[in-house]
Amino acid sequence: MRNPQLNANGELHHLLSLDGLPRAIIERILTTADSFINIAAREVKNVPLLRGSAVFNLFFENSTRTRTTFEIAARRLSADVFNLDITRSSTTKGESLLDTINNLTAMQADMFVVRHATSGAPYLIAKHVAPHVHVINAGDGRHAHPTQGLLDMYTIRHYKRDFTNLTVAIVGDILHSRVARSDIHALTTLGVPEVRAVGPLTLLPAGLPEMGVQVCTRLEEGIKDADVIIMLRLQNERMRGALLPSAQEFFRNYGLTPEKLRLAKPDAIVMHPGPMNRGVEIDSHVADGAQSVILPQVTFGIAVRMAVLSIAASSQRMQ
Amino acid sequence: MRNPQLNANGELHHLLSLDGLPRAIIERILTTADSFINIAAREVKNVPLLRGSAVFNLFFENSTRTRTTFEIAARRLSADVFNLDITRSSTTKGESLLDTINNLTAMQADMFVVRHATSGAPYLIAKHVAPHVHVINAGDGRHAHPTQGLLDMYTIRHYKRDFTNLTVAIVGDILHSRVARSDIHALTTLGVPEVRAVGPLTLLPAGLPEMGVQVCTRLEEGIKDADVIIMLRLQNERMRGALLPSAQEFFRNYGLTPEKLRLAKPDAIVMHPGPMNRGVEIDSHVADGAQSVILPQVTFGIAVRMAVLSIAASSQRMQ
Amino acid sequence: MRNPQLNANGELHHLLSLDGLPRAIIERILTTADSFINIAAREVKNVPLLRGSAVFNLFFENSTRTRTTFEIAARRLSADVFNLDITRSSTTKGESLLDTINNLTAMQADMFVVRHATSGAPYLIAKHVAPHVHVINAGDGRHAHPTQGLLDMYTIRHYKRDFTNLTVAIVGDILHSRVARSDIHALTTLGVPEVRAVGPLTLLPAGLPEMGVQVCTRLEEGIKDADVIIMLRLQNERMRGALLPSAQEFFRNYGLTPEKLRLAKPDAIVMHPGPMNRGVEIDSHVADGAQSVILPQVTFGIAVRMAVLSIAASSQRMQ
Repeated sequence: MRNPQLNANGELHHLLSLDGLPRAIIERILTTADSFINIAAREVKNVPLLRGSAVFNLFFENSTRTRTTFEIAARRLSADVFNLDITRSSTTKGESLLDTINNLTAMQADMFVVRHATSGAPYLIAKHVAPHVHVINAGDGRHAHPTQGLLDMYTIRHYKRDFTNLTVAIVGDILHSRVARSDIHALTTLGVPEVRAVGPLTLLPAGLPEMGVQVCTRLEEGIKDADVIIMLRLQNERMRGALLPSAQEFFRNYGLTPEKLRLAKPDAIVMHPGPMNRGVEIDSHVADGAQSVILPQVTFGIAVRMAVLSIAASSQRMQ
Repeated sequence: MRNPQLNANGELHHLLSLDGLPRAIIERILTTADSFINIAAREVKNVPLLRGSAVFNLFFENSTRTRTTFEIAARRLSADVFNLDITRSSTTKGESLLDTINNLTAMQADMFVVRHATSGAPYLIAKHVAPHVHVINAGDGRHAHPTQGLLDMYTIRHYKRDFTNLTVAIVGDILHSRVARSDIHALTTLGVPEVRAVGPLTLLPAGLPEMGVQVCTRLEEGIKDADVIIMLRLQNERMRGALLPSAQEFFRNYGLTPEKLRLAKPDAIVMHPGPMNRGVEIDSHVADGAQSVILPQVTFGIAVRMAVLSIAASSQRMQ
Repeated sequence: MRNPQLNANGELHHLLSLDGLPRAIIERILTTADSFINIAAREVKNVPLLRGSAVFNLFFENSTRTRTTFEIAARRLSADVFNLDITRSSTTKGESLLDTINNLTAMQADMFVVRHATSGAPYLIAKHVAPHVHVINAGDGRHAHPTQGLLDMYTIRHYKRDFTNLTVAIVGDILHSRVARSDIHALTTLGVPEVRAVGPLTLLPAGLPEMGVQVCTRLEEGIKDADVIIMLRLQNERMRGALLPSAQEFFRNYGLTPEKLRLAKPDAIVMHPGPMNRGVEIDSHVADGAQSVILPQVTFGIAVRMAVLSIAASSQRMQ
């Protein structure tokens, strides 16, 4: 079966997941993002690559931050961006997801940026849209958050240059994290020799070894000599649940403090997809410290999303 | 009394209702919409007709879909569009509707697109705005939804060319439908010889014969040999009320199925204003079938709204 | 300590309060606003002064009206404006205000327009943003609403030309009004010889005489021979509280009626920041009367906000 993200020429048509995305496409996105980083330094940051295109932000799940970064990226590319307040719309009148999508497509949408609580929803949409329409997954359930994964790769490449000699530790609630899943697929595709998943057993999914990931239940072991540490947000609802004793105990065991960070390589970088729970998964001295690249991640995220939107949009014309 | 929608030269200044709107104006809107349909096929879809104009979307009642089509239409015309989240605004602080309108006018609004739960609210607003300001009714109570009526006319003309030899059946909850009311006014104005209202007695308003409409309580009779069938949405709240026994029974009696559709002319088209209740007023095989023009209606709706906005805006300069 | 609103050259970098803002800067804002009033009369109202700049509207407290005027002002200056639905965003996920600001800054924001329920929040933000970022206070708690104060000064100058021979009465709930506080600072800075605060003792704050303000508990005395009367909104929640007997009694004692207005100078103007409570602090005959300049205030507000945004933005390049 053809990868549903690629067109007949093997070009990126939708971005749904980093699972199975060819290395050459990931690298092209990162290289294209480089050029947009330079544009951002100019006084006029807009380029006309998507002029005349209608990009619809369809956030079935709220995320002001991610929605805003996509809106910024699309407007920098001169697209017409429409934010749909979908939580108040016809879906609440009982219309089906596909009827909603068909209707918006009939409004001459060229691209949908979709955030949905249900894993796989962007696939369903991509399967049904007209051939010229593109779908970008902005996070679906626990499944994938591919643009976050790509901006994480951009960040790592920016600071570490070469992926093929790195040790990367992903720490925290791996089980519920679409970011972790996307990062793991990208890291292994890009040839990172050692990827570690670090967390309590209750927050580690099955199947990690099969994905080429080492499992560590102790933080100290997990980040030892690491080049890159990706801290995950601990969802508040997990802290109240049966999976964890308490936020305090989680911090004691898995919170990244300056002392623990010393176990990693001296030039290790610390990443976090945000929003942070200071004092839960990360200590403020680390979050604001010299090794933190958490805010550069956000800036790189705009350029990476510009790259994804413009590459996907250009595929259509060649199809 | 002068028609409050027209200026002293008889030109369209506001669009409030299709009731009493001269045939020449309706036809001019449809013809103008034709030219915008062609523009939509270009890569750059924007035209500068409303450049520098401020269009305010005032949706006192939520409708993501209608609001978005107006926003797309206005931005295609290069207007500056402002979406006011009016349900959260000063109206909740006790300010009167007219004070709100006066304030927004003082912000140099050129056009208001108004959706309101109260019939007649757009008339009240049109009566009080400054002479250069235009008001477009985007649906008021059970009264009127004139742009939906116009896009329905555009759709019929697109597929049937001539109005003067058609039989049009409007099916479902006529009583609560502003769409039905606007369609009936437009159809009779455009010379459709046979307009039928089809539904249970509890959902048929009084006064239909006086409007030149035939009343049918049986679907089979109502759609027999029809050229055009307009299915109406059955509001969920009606299904729970005393007016209807159940959604199942409504579907059995008035739901449009492929079998029943065969009673209409072989080339009959099926329309629906959306959002659809599949399995209540319409069977999925009809909704997605070859005779359905439901999605083209949405596309035509953008062009029709562009026509309405640009024609209303141009009236002012001649006044 | 340096005024936190000014850069090292004494230029306006942030607008946080009118308290301590030099007279020359206030006058420059008013003069700059003049030039934008003329632009608003043109068919194309946009100027390219902020082209390429990203202005983020951060309204932690809802205010559709103020948000819209800032959005209009920024878009007239050709900025890219992003409205953040902050009440639904990560702040509700427990992220700190400064982490939110840092993140948005990393999205390459150039300017934040901030409304916050907590007095001083814009100061905190201004203290922490990167040197090239500007913060505009759009109302913080009971503390300040500087752009409202400036548009009030613009209005007074428009109708009265010279500040140095005026009597200005501010009437109503001075205690809870950030507008009153900003007006008082601006009026005294601009050399108004007589500023009066008029209201019941329960709604008058301490310290008014030290600010150079005369206190009057009787409306008749307070507006006698006044050139300018600024009526304040009585918040609905005050009417139910212990501070006031009832809305009716407030109107009887402090509501501005045509009869009472005759006590002021014959050419006195009546102002109100909106939204009005007709029949509570102001009679409709006054609100809609010949001496009311309430709607011009709104129009001037756009030009004044354009002036503030463009002046603040230009400071950076010289820094």
